[in-house]
Amino acid sequence: MRLDELAKEIGAELVGDGSVEVNGVNTLEDAQTGQVSFLTNARYAKQLDTTKASAVIVAPKTRAAGPGVAMLRAQDPYFAFQKAMVKLHGHRKHPFKGVHPQAFVDPTATVGEGTTIYPGAFVGPGAKIGRDCILYPNVAVYDYCVLGDRVILQANVIIGADGYGYATNGGVHHKIPQAGNVIIEDDVEIGANSCVDRAALGSTLVGKGTKIDDLVMIGHSVKIGPGCLIVAQAGIAGSCEIGKYVVMAGQVGIAGHLNIGDKVTIGAKSGVMSDIPEGRTVMGMPAMPASHSRRVYSIFTQLPELLERVKTLEQQVENLTMTGGDEGVEVV
Amino acid sequence: MRLDELAKEIGAELVGDGSVEVNGVNTLEDAQTGQVSFLTNARYAKQLDTTKASAVIVAPKTRAAGPGVAMLRAQDPYFAFQKAMVKLHGHRKHPFKGVHPQAFVDPTATVGEGTTIYPGAFVGPGAKIGRDCILYPNVAVYDYCVLGDRVILQANVIIGADGYGYATNGGVHHKIPQAGNVIIEDDVEIGANSCVDRAALGSTLVGKGTKIDDLVMIGHSVKIGPGCLIVAQAGIAGSCEIGKYVVMAGQVGIAGHLNIGDKVTIGAKSGVMSDIPEGRTVMGMPAMPASHSRRVYSIFTQLPELLERVKTLEQQVENLTMTGGDEGVEVV
Amino acid sequence: MRLDELAKEIGAELVGDGSVEVNGVNTLEDAQTGQVSFLTNARYAKQLDTTKASAVIVAPKTRAAGPGVAMLRAQDPYFAFQKAMVKLHGHRKHPFKGVHPQAFVDPTATVGEGTTIYPGAFVGPGAKIGRDCILYPNVAVYDYCVLGDRVILQANVIIGADGYGYATNGGVHHKIPQAGNVIIEDDVEIGANSCVDRAALGSTLVGKGTKIDDLVMIGHSVKIGPGCLIVAQAGIAGSCEIGKYVVMAGQVGIAGHLNIGDKVTIGAKSGVMSDIPEGRTVMGMPAMPASHSRRVYSIFTQLPELLERVKTLEQQVENLTMTGGDEGVEVV
Repeated sequence: MRLDELAKEIGAELVGDGSVEVNGVNTLEDAQTGQVSFLTNARYAKQLDTTKASAVIVAPKTRAAGPGVAMLRAQDPYFAFQKAMVKLHGHRKHPFKGVHPQAFVDPTATVGEGTTIYPGAFVGPGAKIGRDCILYPNVAVYDYCVLGDRVILQANVIIGADGYGYATNGGVHHKIPQAGNVIIEDDVEIGANSCVDRAALGSTLVGKGTKIDDLVMIGHSVKIGPGCLIVAQAGIAGSCEIGKYVVMAGQVGIAGHLNIGDKVTIGAKSGVMSDIPEGRTVMGMPAMPASHSRRVYSIFTQLPELLERVKTLEQQVENLTMTGGDEGVEVV
Repeated sequence: MRLDELAKEIGAELVGDGSVEVNGVNTLEDAQTGQVSFLTNARYAKQLDTTKASAVIVAPKTRAAGPGVAMLRAQDPYFAFQKAMVKLHGHRKHPFKGVHPQAFVDPTATVGEGTTIYPGAFVGPGAKIGRDCILYPNVAVYDYCVLGDRVILQANVIIGADGYGYATNGGVHHKIPQAGNVIIEDDVEIGANSCVDRAALGSTLVGKGTKIDDLVMIGHSVKIGPGCLIVAQAGIAGSCEIGKYVVMAGQVGIAGHLNIGDKVTIGAKSGVMSDIPEGRTVMGMPAMPASHSRRVYSIFTQLPELLERVKTLEQQVENLTMTGGDEGVEVV
Repeated sequence: MRLDELAKEIGAELVGDGSVEVNGVNTLEDAQTGQVSFLTNARYAKQLDTTKASAVIVAPKTRAAGPGVAMLRAQDPYFAFQKAMVKLHGHRKHPFKGVHPQAFVDPTATVGEGTTIYPGAFVGPGAKIGRDCILYPNVAVYDYCVLGDRVILQANVIIGADGYGYATNGGVHHKIPQAGNVIIEDDVEIGANSCVDRAALGSTLVGKGTKIDDLVMIGHSVKIGPGCLIVAQAGIAGSCEIGKYVVMAGQVGIAGHLNIGDKVTIGAKSGVMSDIPEGRTVMGMPAMPASHSRRVYSIFTQLPELLERVKTLEQQVENLTMTGGDEGVEVV
C-alpha cells in the first residue's frame, strides 16, 4: 500500500514522500524499511532519531523523526495506529467457516450468520449467539445465555456457569438453583479463562462494547454498563452494579452488592468495600480516593521514619518533663 | 402449584390466601403476580411495600407486605427460599444422559450411575467418578483422581494437574513426578476455571460438602475439611491443612504448609502467613484478628492525619524546648 | 530396586543395609517398609525417630533416624529426592501416543516427534510444536505460536490468545489486531488454566526452563528470561521485561512496561509498580526492598500502639505547655 493511501485511510496528515510502499506496522525499535511505526508513549521519543521505519504516526506537534522518515500526523495517533494495524495486518482469518464439527451446539440453540465457533466450544440448550461472533476453542456458553453481535470470547471463556449460591442449614450448604442467565451485549470481548456466572434470578449483564481481559471473575447477577474496561484477574462479587465506562485495573476486587458509578477508575489490586460515586478515581486496599490514597501509601512506606520521629518526640518530652518538673519545684 | 402446598413443602407458616397459584420465584423488585419473593437482606425491606409478588418468604417477625401479598414465615427464610427455588425452578435438566460421545473417558476409568459428562470433558486412566456427578464442558479429571457422589464440576475445572514441584540444581528446575492424586469427597461443587492440583505423594483432598467458587487454586497436597466455603480467586499454597467449615472470601491467599483451624473465617483479599487457630476471624494483609485488623486499617486510612499530629507535636516540643531551655538557663 | 543401586543412581552415600528392596517414595509420616523417605524441611525432623521408611534421604550432617532405617546422605537432598521419585515412580505414562483424534491440529501446524496432544487440545494454523512436548486436555495454542522442545502445558493452558489492546475513540474501544505471536522456549512448563497472550507486534516470550504455576496471566509482549519461577495467580501486565531466574510468589502483580532484573525475588501478593534492579528481594503493596518492607509491615500491624503513643505524647505536651506557659509568665 502506498503511504499516501494509508495516510488517507487512517485520517493522518502526511509529511514526506507519499509514493513509498508500506506493508506492515512495527515498533520504532524493530521497524524496517517498508514498515510504519508510531509514537504514543513519550518514553520512546528518543527512538525517533534511530528508527528505520519508513513513516511514523505521531501527534500533530511531535517533532520530526530522522531524515527520510515520513511523518503521519494525527489528532489521535493511537487510534490512527489502530487503523493502520487493521489496514496492514487485519484481524485474524479463521481456518474454517461457521460451526466447527468438533464444537458442540445444542440443537435448541441459535447461532447468527457469520459467527465462527472453534473446536471444543460448547453452546448449551436455548442459548442465543448473535451474528459475527467468535467463540474460540473450549469456550462454554451454558443454557439460555444470550450473546449479542460481534461478541468475541477468547479460549476457555465460560459464560453462564452456576453462580455461587448456597443456603446453609444444619451444617449443609444447599445449592440454590441458578435459574437466571447471562446476557452479553454487542461488541463485548472477553479474555482467555475468564468467567461470567449466571444469575440465580434474572440476568447477569455485560454492557455493549465492554472489554474484559483474561482470568476475570464476574459474579452472579452483576450488571456491568457499556464501554467498561476490566483488566486481568479482577473479580466482581455477586449483585454489583457497575456503571458506564468504568475502568478496573488488574487484580481489583469488588465486594458484593456495591454500586460503582459511571466513569469510575479503580487502581490495580484495589479492594473496593463500599459504593463509589460517579467519576471518582480510587485505589488502595481498602480503596480510597486517589489523592488521599497516594498520601496514605507514601506515609505507609515511610512508617519506619514516622516511628523514629515519635521515638525522638518521646525522648524529648521525657527530657522536658524531667527538666520542667525540677524547675517547677525549684521555682515555686 | 398452590401457595398452601408450597408453604408446606418449604416449611413456612402461611398468612394469606393459600389457593393462589404460584409458578416461580423472583426478587421483590422484579416479581409479578404468580411469583413468590423473599426478604433475607434488610436493605431491601422497603420493597415489601411495593412488590407485586403474590407471596413473600420472610423471617417470623418481619412486618407484613402490602395488601394482597401473602406472607410465608420461616425460621430460616434463606433456606426456605432455596427450597422454593428447587420446587418451582428445579436444578438444570441436562440435554443428554450419561457420558456424551464428545467427551473422553479412558477405558480404565470408572463412572458411577446417574453421572453426566458433558462434551469436551476428559477423564484420565484409572480415575473414579462417583454416582450422580456432573462434569460440565471441558472439565479435566487427570489419571487416578477420585470423585465421590454428587460432585459438580463447572466448566473447565481441572482436577489433578501436576503440582508445582521442582528441585533446582545447577540452575535447572528438575520436575518432581507428581505421583499422588486428588480425592474430591461427596457433595463438593467447584466453580468454573478452578483447579485442584494432585499431590506429589499421597492425596490432595477436598472434604465432603465443601463448595469452591470460580478461578480458585488449590495447591498440591492441600487437605481441606468438610463444609468449607472458598470464594472466587482465592489461592491455597501447597501442603496446607484447612479445617472444617472454614470460610475464605474472594482473592484470599494462604502461604504453604499452614494449618487453618475449624470454623475460621478469612476476609477478602487477606494474605495468611501463619497458622490460624480454630474459630478465629481474620482479615488484612497480613491477616490479623478481625477486631485488631479493623483498628489497624482505620488508622492506616487516616495516616495523613496521624502524620499531621506528629508534626504538630514536633512544633510544640520545639517551642517548649526553646522556652524551657532559656528558662532553664535563666533560672539557674 | 536394591537400596545400594538407588543410592548410586541418586548420588547419595548409603549408611545401612544396601540389599534392602525399595519400591517407592513417601513422606516420613506415611512411609512403610520398602519405601524411601526424605527430610528436606527441618520442621519434620522429629519424624526421623518414628518413621517406618526403610531409608531416608538427608543432608550430609543430619543425625541418623531410628534403628533399622538406612540413611542416604546427599549434598542436595531435595535433588536426590527428585531423582528417587523419577527412578521409583517415573513421570506420567500417557494412555496413547501422538496426537489424539479428539484433538484439533490445523493442517498447517507442525508437531515434533514424541509430542503428545490430549483430547480437546487445539493447535491453530501455522503453529509450531517442538519434540517431546505434552499438551494436556483442552490446551489451546493459537495460530503462529511456537513451542520449543519438552514443553509441558497442563490442562486448559491458553497460548497466544489476543492481548488486551484497544484504541478508545469517541467512547468506542477499537480492537487492535494482535499481529504478533508467543514463543515458548525449551523445557518450559505452564500450570493449569494459565494464559500467555500474544503480542500486538513481535513476540511474547517465555524463556528456556521457566516454570509457571496455575492461573497465571502473562500479558502481551512480555519477555520472560530463562529459569524463572512464577507461582499461582501471579499476573504480569503487558510489555514487561523479566530477567533470568526471577522468582515471583503467588498472587503477585506487575504493572505494565516494567523491567525486573535478573535473580529478583518478589514476595507473595506484592504489587510491583516500578523497575526492580538485579538481585533485589522485594515484597509488599507497593513492593519495597524486603528488609524495609518487614519493618513497614511490622509497624503497620502495630499502628494502634503507635497511635496510643502519639495520644500519650499529645497529653504530655499539653500538660507541659500549660505548666511551662504558667511558669514562663511567672518567671518573667
